[in-house]
Amino acid sequence: MESFLTYDDRNMRITDAERRSVRKAVLEAHMRIEKARVRGEREFLDLPFDLRSMTAIARAARRVQKRFTHMIIVGIGGSDLGARTIWQALGGSKATLTFASNPDPESISHLLTSIDWKQTAMNVVSKSGTTLETMAIFMVLRESLIKEVGTKHHAEHIFVTTEPSPDSPLFQIATEEAYEVIPHPLNIGGRFSVLSGVGLFPAAVSGANVRRILAGARTAETERRERKCESVAARFALNQFISMTKYARTNHVLMAYADLLSQFGFWYRQIWAESLGKVRHGVSIGPTPIAAIGAIDQHSQIQLYNEGPDDKTTTFIEVERFRRSIRIPKVWGNHEAFDYIGGLSLERILHDERAGTEHALTMHHRPSGTLRIHAISPESLGSLFITFEAATAYMGELMGVNAYNQPGVEEGKREARRLLSR
Amino acid sequence: MESFLTYDDRNMRITDAERRSVRKAVLEAHMRIEKARVRGEREFLDLPFDLRSMTAIARAARRVQKRFTHMIIVGIGGSDLGARTIWQALGGSKATLTFASNPDPESISHLLTSIDWKQTAMNVVSKSGTTLETMAIFMVLRESLIKEVGTKHHAEHIFVTTEPSPDSPLFQIATEEAYEVIPHPLNIGGRFSVLSGVGLFPAAVSGANVRRILAGARTAETERRERKCESVAARFALNQFISMTKYARTNHVLMAYADLLSQFGFWYRQIWAESLGKVRHGVSIGPTPIAAIGAIDQHSQIQLYNEGPDDKTTTFIEVERFRRSIRIPKVWGNHEAFDYIGGLSLERILHDERAGTEHALTMHHRPSGTLRIHAISPESLGSLFITFEAATAYMGELMGVNAYNQPGVEEGKREARRLLSR
Repeated sequence: MESFLTYDDRNMRITDAERRSVRKAVLEAHMRIEKARVRGEREFLDLPFDLRSMTAIARAARRVQKRFTHMIIVGIGGSDLGARTIWQALGGSKATLTFASNPDPESISHLLTSIDWKQTAMNVVSKSGTTLETMAIFMVLRESLIKEVGTKHHAEHIFVTTEPSPDSPLFQIATEEAYEVIPHPLNIGGRFSVLSGVGLFPAAVSGANVRRILAGARTAETERRERKCESVAARFALNQFISMTKYARTNHVLMAYADLLSQFGFWYRQIWAESLGKVRHGVSIGPTPIAAIGAIDQHSQIQLYNEGPDDKTTTFIEVERFRRSIRIPKVWGNHEAFDYIGGLSLERILHDERAGTEHALTMHHRPSGTLRIHAISPESLGSLFITFEAATAYMGELMGVNAYNQPGVEEGKREARRLLSR
Repeated sequence: MESFLTYDDRNMRITDAERRSVRKAVLEAHMRIEKARVRGEREFLDLPFDLRSMTAIARAARRVQKRFTHMIIVGIGGSDLGARTIWQALGGSKATLTFASNPDPESISHLLTSIDWKQTAMNVVSKSGTTLETMAIFMVLRESLIKEVGTKHHAEHIFVTTEPSPDSPLFQIATEEAYEVIPHPLNIGGRFSVLSGVGLFPAAVSGANVRRILAGARTAETERRERKCESVAARFALNQFISMTKYARTNHVLMAYADLLSQFGFWYRQIWAESLGKVRHGVSIGPTPIAAIGAIDQHSQIQLYNEGPDDKTTTFIEVERFRRSIRIPKVWGNHEAFDYIGGLSLERILHDERAGTEHALTMHHRPSGTLRIHAISPESLGSLFITFEAATAYMGELMGVNAYNQPGVEEGKREARRLLSR
């Protein structure tokens, strides 16, 4: 079984002795996760093996493809970050996806003027079926849809991803209006849901190969279960945990050297922040995730990472082989600034720039690690998703926090609702 | 004179006594900045008044518009973040802008397949004229341009923004090949250059109203000079400085409640990080800027901001009036989850969500401030740019660092160059 993702942590500035000192805690974390999983309480780790759900998703997606060339995904946070990531990284030739997250009148009015509803389906995603922003945008878009295709036929365009439970008002509406329901898994939070219908239904509609995404996730997850403390997920969590608790390196930068992984950075930001930023025994703890893109952020953030406070870890994502290769022509050979790159490839530049940045961080005594994927492929993306989900689970166990709730978002929601109900 | 930008810092959790204790230092910082400016050493603060350069830029832009409908900007970091910000926020009806920053073969090959060179100009931007990524992409795009329009006519498509100095290899090339040069101001670093031709030439080409951008910047800058310590820029810097040094709140979140300001967040990230992340007397200091978007990041980062470590300040950008208004239809009145928002507007939701988030941060004893702009307009954008540039200058003075160099990026560049020359 080939790995689609490897992890080089030699430059993390953590000694073997330090690793050994936390090893027992990691092993215990592993056992707790596995016990909970076997009890059915970590269902996100079993999603890669749920081929039955995937078949149903693929079937629903084919029905969409038969009739529509576009789909609008209405969702926010865990309801759309995964699908956005897959769409950016893999694209798809069957349908074009558009995302509507923010109740910003300028973006939504721009969207409204560009929709041809005859060709367009809409996937409304909300686990609880109550998400304010999503419901508001859905109500606006639905009115436009009905105006164009009529009340009678509008339901054929709408696919609702929510918990199939009477507790979800969106599920109740779907029943009343006869919208097709893609079930949101009951016990999986939004930020751990990308490998369920939440992420895979839009991906399948677009034409991305969801079987290969799951196969990649399966490979990484099988490896995790077998290798225990030595898995990429466990090692990544161990390194971040020691960096955070022993060295106060609380800012965790993920810097992908690939434009098509910028959305992955936003997906990571959510799972790392919302799962681990918690109050434990009255004390506020948790790392701050930061998403960066190489080489772009060498010209924006690297000055800070190299010379600013030693409060960060940097994890690179390196793509070993790009799907395209571009050669730089040899011109202006009499100018040194141009001559030395003539004949090289763009991917060579990106590789060597990452190596240069790693070198500079090391010279400045700043820790870095590198996650390597063979290519931006469905398999490597599936591996990345499940690996970061598992790493989050390990970090939660090591930190002693519940990685699966988000009590700190309620206060603001309540206040907004109070203001809106005035 | 109307202000296009106001600042509410009542929730910053800083007492009047604390403010008074730093007031003298801020006043001294102000005097040093003004002295340096009068000596001609803070030229970025005078750009809003440089109407002569702007007239030349507008004239060059009209020549582009006459012949082309598209322009590709090749640049990275300070060479393109400003133009990207203006293009996203204001758009323009005269020409479509596309940006090429990263030597990522997948994005560049995607770009190459979509260019119609007959309709397309190219603006290559590099202050030093040596930027590796920019030169590489330029050489690739130029080859494609020549293939389509021929060597003889290709120069008509190319506009080079660089220092008009023999030290810039790009300037030498421009002279040899007869490319039109838009001069990069000699004494202004990339991240302070948005209000020069670096940002305004692409903006003018697209059709954005650069006169109004400068007018907004002029208003804010005039106010800064008059109000000294009471200006938005000085107050913002003072609050961030006290938060950082006295309360160890080193992570500075800028959270705009507007999709069209997400690029502004990236522009801010550069100026704050690269200017202030420095070694001073052998000690690494500096805030870490973080860009967020409301309401989206309420579903991703707010759990961390509310309950995670008290190491952050949050500054909201609130847009008072959006250029569009969208009403949510009244439907499903029998479902409470939908009923309470029926009849409201999307912008009302965005406003009340920001207020809810501010309330929640305050309940969790986390500081926040709010920058208010009347609308996303050329004037407010100009005000934001110059205000953050000036705030960076104040912070540099208060911290005792040189905000205008970036010694920490050299190590990585050298190593990359060594690897590439192998």
